[in-house]
Amino acid sequence: MSKDRLIFVTNDDSYASKGFAAAIEVARRFGRVIAIAPEYPQSGMSQAITIYNPLYLRTVRDEEDVKVYALSGTPVDCVKFAFDHLLADLKIDLTISGVNHGSNAAVNVLYSGTMGAAIESSFYHIPSVGLSVLDHSADADFDVAVEYGTRIVEAVLENDLPRPLCLNVNFPILPKEEIRGIRICRQTRGYWHEDFYQREDPHGRRYYWLTGAFDNHEPEAEDTDEWALAHGYVSVVPVQVDMTCYEQLSPLKKVL
Amino acid sequence: MSKDRLIFVTNDDSYASKGFAAAIEVARRFGRVIAIAPEYPQSGMSQAITIYNPLYLRTVRDEEDVKVYALSGTPVDCVKFAFDHLLADLKIDLTISGVNHGSNAAVNVLYSGTMGAAIESSFYHIPSVGLSVLDHSADADFDVAVEYGTRIVEAVLENDLPRPLCLNVNFPILPKEEIRGIRICRQTRGYWHEDFYQREDPHGRRYYWLTGAFDNHEPEAEDTDEWALAHGYVSVVPVQVDMTCYEQLSPLKKVL
Repeated sequence: MSKDRLIFVTNDDSYASKGFAAAIEVARRFGRVIAIAPEYPQSGMSQAITIYNPLYLRTVRDEEDVKVYALSGTPVDCVKFAFDHLLADLKIDLTISGVNHGSNAAVNVLYSGTMGAAIESSFYHIPSVGLSVLDHSADADFDVAVEYGTRIVEAVLENDLPRPLCLNVNFPILPKEEIRGIRICRQTRGYWHEDFYQREDPHGRRYYWLTGAFDNHEPEAEDTDEWALAHGYVSVVPVQVDMTCYEQLSPLKKVL
Repeated sequence: MSKDRLIFVTNDDSYASKGFAAAIEVARRFGRVIAIAPEYPQSGMSQAITIYNPLYLRTVRDEEDVKVYALSGTPVDCVKFAFDHLLADLKIDLTISGVNHGSNAAVNVLYSGTMGAAIESSFYHIPSVGLSVLDHSADADFDVAVEYGTRIVEAVLENDLPRPLCLNVNFPILPKEEIRGIRICRQTRGYWHEDFYQREDPHGRRYYWLTGAFDNHEPEAEDTDEWALAHGYVSVVPVQVDMTCYEQLSPLKKVL
């Protein structure tokens, strides 16, 4: 396996997260690493871009084979800034986004800053892999993510898969020996139902805080990412970005 | 046409934008209006949700038939807060998101806060229409948007179209009499290329500001939204949210 490659790493939990270090660890097995991650946590930032504010860049780590920058923007800003500016003259072999603290399976792919960055990276014709563990905690264990993430990144690098290529990879919370393998899946159908936590702030103003639960509309469907994760598999969903609902074109043509 | 309906209105340019007033004008033609829009402009916020901060709600307008609130969050926060909290006991007939100042055609659907809100609303089984004019300016003209938006909303309300239903509607910058009609389209393939404007702030720190241009990969494709808009039509793209790239499932199964 060649170690001459150049791997770009980003995430949404900021340059300081444990998962980001895990992603760099995976990337280092394949070559040099350049990483740009958000200065501040950006979970749930989806494919957001910063329009109204300037962005500041800061060097966090500057070694021969690992360079890490923090950018005061969103995950997608990091990708755009990398491929259209800072690294515009370099050939990047692959992007790893993550490792995210928390699931990006099912409809979470739409809210996720980690997947926003992975999707954006695939627009530059760079194979992109978003990695997420189902554990939200800051000190989540990344052993499974590093081992299986390495295997998946290697498969992408060693095979000439069709592009754009963007993979949404999620890891269940299980010790390594209990993982049953990797499953290629489709995105599960289902949505979140939110519950707004209500309190008063110290100034007597009422505030609300988003919290909720995912409602899986097809828990028995064995080809979905949620099923795979619930049954001890690492889930891999290939992601595309044509949002057109083709089945609705013809009923709409009849009424408009 | 029944005027007893209850229409929900939101947007991403904030409760104070001209386009929001235009959306309320359209909605008023069909019934009572309840609107929750972001307190501050949220362009480019995609389907972002607020996880780390509390949300504050403020009443902006309180009339018998039009109630307007400002929420200190993203467009998707407004939708979740509406349908899972404030309006949870009401039957909402339709959501209008917009009218956005700026195009949400092609891949913009992914970055757009307006479309993020429309997509989110469709998750609640409420027919959702995102309206956008191709003019970014604060004083953009909304006559075309109001006239054709009304026509499209009426068609959705009067016909029992399959759900979830989410329409991405864009209006070209043309006087009403030059509009050639409505076209049902698919999302154009193509991506943005960014250019980062570079300056120094008053403290001598270098900053970057995102700016760019859309690169249409299929300008001749007559079934796309970009083609329709370039040729004087109002474009309507039905939107779905299964991001799975089905063609890549089987090549991936061979290598993973």
